[in-house]
Amino acid sequence: MKHNFGAGPCILPQEVFHQAAEAVLDFNGLSILEVSHRHKDFVAVMDETMDLVKKALHVPSGYSVAFLQGGATLGFTIAALNMLRETKKAGYINTGVWAAGAIKEAKKVGVDVSVFASSEDKNFSYIPKDYTIPSDVDYIHFTSNNTIYGTQFKEFPKTNLPLVCDMSSDIFSKEINIGDFDLIYAGAQKNLGPAGATLYIVKDEILGKSTSSFMPTYLDLKQQVEKESMLNTPPVFSIYVAMLNLRNLLANGGVKEMEIKNNAKSVLLYNEIDHNPLFRGTVATEDRSNMNVTFLLENDSLQESFDKMWKAAEIVGLPGHRSTGGYRASMYNALPIESVQVLVNVMKEFTRING
Amino acid sequence: MKHNFGAGPCILPQEVFHQAAEAVLDFNGLSILEVSHRHKDFVAVMDETMDLVKKALHVPSGYSVAFLQGGATLGFTIAALNMLRETKKAGYINTGVWAAGAIKEAKKVGVDVSVFASSEDKNFSYIPKDYTIPSDVDYIHFTSNNTIYGTQFKEFPKTNLPLVCDMSSDIFSKEINIGDFDLIYAGAQKNLGPAGATLYIVKDEILGKSTSSFMPTYLDLKQQVEKESMLNTPPVFSIYVAMLNLRNLLANGGVKEMEIKNNAKSVLLYNEIDHNPLFRGTVATEDRSNMNVTFLLENDSLQESFDKMWKAAEIVGLPGHRSTGGYRASMYNALPIESVQVLVNVMKEFTRING
Repeated sequence: MKHNFGAGPCILPQEVFHQAAEAVLDFNGLSILEVSHRHKDFVAVMDETMDLVKKALHVPSGYSVAFLQGGATLGFTIAALNMLRETKKAGYINTGVWAAGAIKEAKKVGVDVSVFASSEDKNFSYIPKDYTIPSDVDYIHFTSNNTIYGTQFKEFPKTNLPLVCDMSSDIFSKEINIGDFDLIYAGAQKNLGPAGATLYIVKDEILGKSTSSFMPTYLDLKQQVEKESMLNTPPVFSIYVAMLNLRNLLANGGVKEMEIKNNAKSVLLYNEIDHNPLFRGTVATEDRSNMNVTFLLENDSLQESFDKMWKAAEIVGLPGHRSTGGYRASMYNALPIESVQVLVNVMKEFTRING
Repeated sequence: MKHNFGAGPCILPQEVFHQAAEAVLDFNGLSILEVSHRHKDFVAVMDETMDLVKKALHVPSGYSVAFLQGGATLGFTIAALNMLRETKKAGYINTGVWAAGAIKEAKKVGVDVSVFASSEDKNFSYIPKDYTIPSDVDYIHFTSNNTIYGTQFKEFPKTNLPLVCDMSSDIFSKEINIGDFDLIYAGAQKNLGPAGATLYIVKDEILGKSTSSFMPTYLDLKQQVEKESMLNTPPVFSIYVAMLNLRNLLANGGVKEMEIKNNAKSVLLYNEIDHNPLFRGTVATEDRSNMNVTFLLENDSLQESFDKMWKAAEIVGLPGHRSTGGYRASMYNALPIESVQVLVNVMKEFTRING
C-alpha cells in the first residue's frame, strides 16, 4: 500500500474508494454514472450530502449549503460578485498564490481591493498578524490554509464586517465556528471528496444583495441555493463520493476526532523536523499548517539519497510545490498516522546513514 | 439488465463502467480519485482525452479542445463573453428551454440579442427554417438538439458570421464538419462521459478577441486553452471516464459507425410510433431527433397500463420532461438497438392487448 502525501486531489478513506467503485457498477440497478440527477435516488444523495455538511460542521440555522463546479478559482469570482455592496471595496489578506488569485479575480469584476495584510515580504512563510482591518469595505477575504507554503491561520481575523474565506484545504480538518463567516467556499478535493465539486456555505441574509451589474445565473449564489444545487446538472459522482466520505467522517467521530488525529500527525512530523539535524521547517513555527508540512534538507546534495529512501518506502506526493522546491507532506484527514510514522522512520534512518 | 432511456446523465458502454470502477480501486497503484492532476499519469490522461476528441470529430488544425466545468449553463455565459466583438450584438435561434437559457445569459453579460428565428409559436415542436440571418452581429448561436422536445437540426445554419453551437446532446452522435464552427460547447453527460466536465472546441483565431469588459480568468477560453485545461484542478474522474468512453467509441468504428447505429435505432422506433395506432410523435417529422424520441399515447386513459408494461420490461427513464409530459426515449450512443427493440416489442404487445 502506498502512503499518499499528495497535496490534492488527495487520499480519501479506502472504504470510500471501495464504496465508490461499487456504485460505479451498481447503484440501485444502474451505474451511478448513468443515473439522472433528477431521479429521486440521486436527489436523496444530494439532500443527504448537504445535510451531512451541516451536521459535520454544526452549520447553524440561517445558513445554506450548495455545491457548484469550477473549483476555488471560479469561487474567487463568485465570492466577489456575491459580496459586492455599496462601497465596491473589499479587504484581502495576501498569504500566497491562492490568496493572490482571489485578489486578482475580485479586481477583474470591479472590486476595489485593499490588501491590508500580506506576508509577501518573506515569501509567504508566515501568517500576517499585526494589521488593521479597513472599516469602509464590503467584506474581508482570507485563505485559511496555504497549501504551497504550509501556513495556516490558527486564529481567524476578527471583524464585524462580512467575513469570506477560501477554506479549500483545511475545511473538515478542525472545528470552526461557521457563525463567524458570511461565506465559505472550498474545492472538494482535499478533505471532502474527489475533484469536480465546490462547496459553498453561505449566510442566507447575504443572498441577493449584490450590487454587481454583472451576475450570470450560474454565479449567483441566491439562485444556486434556491435550486438546492440543482440549477443544472451537478457533478453527480463527485457529490456521491463526498456523501460517502462525509458518512465515513461522521461514523468516525466527526470533525472533532479528525482534529485530534490531525494534531497528533502534525506533532509527530514537526517534532522530527525540529529534532532531526538534516532537516528544517520552512515557515514560522506558530503558523505551521497541520495539513501541509513543508520542509527542506539542510544539505541539498543529499536530495537524491533522501528521494530514493522515501520512494522505496512507497511514499508518494512528497516533492514541494514547483514554486518553492523542497518537500511537502500533505496530511489530510484520510492519511493515517501510520503513514506519517513511515515518513518519520525514513527521515530517522536517512539521518542515521548520512548524519 | 436495465434498458436506460434516460435523457442524461445517461447510459455509457458497460465496458466503460467496468474500467472506471477498476480505476477507482487501482490506477497505477492509487485510486484515480486520489491522483494529483499534476502527476504525469493524469497529465497523460488529459492529453489523450483531448487528442481523442480531435480524432473522433476530425478536428482540423487551427482548433483547440478544452475541458471546463459548469455545464452548458456556464457555457451560455462563456460563449457570449468570448464571442463578443464590436457590435455587441448576436443572433440566436430559439428552439426551447436550453436555447432560451443561452439567450438569457447572453443578455445578462450585455449582449444585444436578436432572436431571428424561433419555434415558440408551436411549443418548439419544429426547427425553424425560413429565417434571415442578421448580418450586423458578432456571432450566431443555436442549439443543435433539443432534448426536451425531441427536435434536432438536420442542417446547420449557413452563415459567414462566427457560428456558435451548444451541442451538448448530440455531439459524437453523427459526423459534423468542425470547420463550420467557431465555438462548440457541450456538457459531457450524454455521449461523452459522466456529468462534471464540459467540452469546448474552439477556433484558435477567436481567442483573446473579446470586447467584454468583464472576463474572469476561469471564463476566458484563451487562458483555459493556453493552460491545456489545467488552469485549475480539472474534474479528474469525469475526464478519465470520458477518455475511456472515447477509446471505446474509436475502437468501435468511431462517430461514423455511431451515426449508422443511431439512424437504425431511430428508424426502428419512429417506424413503430408512426404505424402503431395507439401512439403518435410530437414533433415535425423532418426535425425529429435521433437522440430523444418524444411521443404520446393517443388515449391518455391507457397510460397506467402502458407504464406498467415498460416498467415490467426493465425499461427506465421513459417519462417525458416535466414541462411536456408524454414519453421520451433517449437513445444515446451507448444504448444498444436491442433495448430499442425491447421498447418496440412492449409497444406492439400493448397495442395487441389494448388496440
